[in-house]
Amino acid sequence: MDPRVSPPSFDLPAWSHAHLVRVEQALSKWVTTETPAGVDHSAPAALVAAMRYAVLDGGKRLRPLLVMAAFEATQTSPVFEAPASVAALRAACAVELIHAYSLVHDDMPCMDNDVLRRGKPTVHVQFGEASALLAGDALQALAFELLTPESPEVPAERQARLCRQLARAAGSGGMAGGQAIDLASVGRTPTESQLRDMHRLKTGALLQASVMMGAACGDPAPVALAALQTYGAAMGLAFQVVDDILDVTADSATLGKTAGKDADHDKPTYVSLLGLARSTDYAQELLAQALQALESSGLRSTQALQGLAKMVVNRSS
Amino acid sequence: MDPRVSPPSFDLPAWSHAHLVRVEQALSKWVTTETPAGVDHSAPAALVAAMRYAVLDGGKRLRPLLVMAAFEATQTSPVFEAPASVAALRAACAVELIHAYSLVHDDMPCMDNDVLRRGKPTVHVQFGEASALLAGDALQALAFELLTPESPEVPAERQARLCRQLARAAGSGGMAGGQAIDLASVGRTPTESQLRDMHRLKTGALLQASVMMGAACGDPAPVALAALQTYGAAMGLAFQVVDDILDVTADSATLGKTAGKDADHDKPTYVSLLGLARSTDYAQELLAQALQALESSGLRSTQALQGLAKMVVNRSS
Repeated sequence: MDPRVSPPSFDLPAWSHAHLVRVEQALSKWVTTETPAGVDHSAPAALVAAMRYAVLDGGKRLRPLLVMAAFEATQTSPVFEAPASVAALRAACAVELIHAYSLVHDDMPCMDNDVLRRGKPTVHVQFGEASALLAGDALQALAFELLTPESPEVPAERQARLCRQLARAAGSGGMAGGQAIDLASVGRTPTESQLRDMHRLKTGALLQASVMMGAACGDPAPVALAALQTYGAAMGLAFQVVDDILDVTADSATLGKTAGKDADHDKPTYVSLLGLARSTDYAQELLAQALQALESSGLRSTQALQGLAKMVVNRSS
Repeated sequence: MDPRVSPPSFDLPAWSHAHLVRVEQALSKWVTTETPAGVDHSAPAALVAAMRYAVLDGGKRLRPLLVMAAFEATQTSPVFEAPASVAALRAACAVELIHAYSLVHDDMPCMDNDVLRRGKPTVHVQFGEASALLAGDALQALAFELLTPESPEVPAERQARLCRQLARAAGSGGMAGGQAIDLASVGRTPTESQLRDMHRLKTGALLQASVMMGAACGDPAPVALAALQTYGAAMGLAFQVVDDILDVTADSATLGKTAGKDADHDKPTYVSLLGLARSTDYAQELLAQALQALESSGLRSTQALQGLAKMVVNRSS
């Protein structure tokens, strides 16, 4: 039996582990001290050290897993066959670099001023503010460099599309735009639709892009693409609702970051707007929407995407 | 007579003006408040305002002009014919966005802590530090978005190559790496070769990439490409040597930014290392190298590239 056809017991932890090993190895290889030929200096090594600290050995890697899951669901040739698989791995690492840079800049004193991330001192605490700023900037550039290898292993058409998707998700119409809304919303009480718009951009855009970039490395039918867009939107929003819930219900040690900081910063959240019970219901509703989209997608191998959506909603950290 | 064949009197100001009008219009059109359909909010408008403030109405636009000059020198069809001309215009704007974001972040309190840029308050002074950080981040993303239009006006092959060139020039092996070396060098006395390496990355990489991205929109022969690489390297280094000279010899009003800040910050410069006279000689030597490279390039229409190199070395601000 083809193992990709709905096995009765899909093992998400085992699936995740196999992919995370590849992603971690690739990130460690690509976030490196390579400098142009003929250049002899040591300071970029200090920059790369800050970049590596920001990226390696930490985080749930939800975005890379979404890329790989969407890729597997939409591709028609054997799963690990190059070059599509190479493109997906590059896309998986690129979205993680964008996520990592956003955390580095978000934690800086002029933004959230946070000292703890993934259970470790934040980058600016460890390396200084200037290095944190530069490391974030360099991580964003590296994301686009990863998507555009000189070798022909990823076709130019696919390289260009992946860059387009990532740039849009990261920029003023995506993640950076959402952070700007967040910044402007402190101390105000937004409507639910305003809160949703903020999160659609701030975290939703990159999560959805992860799904769509994975699909861009496969061969999805238009109906499947539309379904994945719906899945990505629902799952991205669910992620944020659950984040807001955990900020209230979990402690810092479990989260690996400072708990309760939204309330401390007087930031509007789903919990402050809807209350805890309705927020929890809303997260489950979004999960149902995401799973329903997968059912209607016509795709066969959606177990990983299903499992990741459930994990997002039912996580405790 | 074909006007592109060495006219006796090439009018650089008129040539620059014609291109700058197109670049300014394009930047104003592309750095905008477009938000995803169905999203209803106003805060990204505040972000875009900071982005526009950082980019529009200011600067010499040297990098866009280098893109256009290299494009004109290397292309074989009439100058303003699409799609190559469209690609060059997008590349010109993209390099300027990267340059603009680097200035925004460079001016922040944790870096150079500068309050004056292009004769105006710096972005963080005008909009606050958090907005400056986000505006810089969003400008970088927008640069890659500009290079990857969904329409087929720029072939995918060219989109991917331009992204690759820009990402490398901006990242840890380019501009961000050079800034990290700069950061680490404060209060130290580097050798001349260390200083050169720093500047090769910090300002040289993006200036050289501007030339090479312009050429990537044309059809250069390999010998021409190699010559342009040499031209870009010499001109990029000359730019920095002259910058160091002007920091000592010009006043803030002429520069439109704070003069004398390198000495104030105890930063190593060509002037502190070589003295004023030898620095001036070195700049002329680099200009000669750049012009020699153009002569050996086999390219016919290099007047704009010649004029820009002379302008870089002989400028007074």
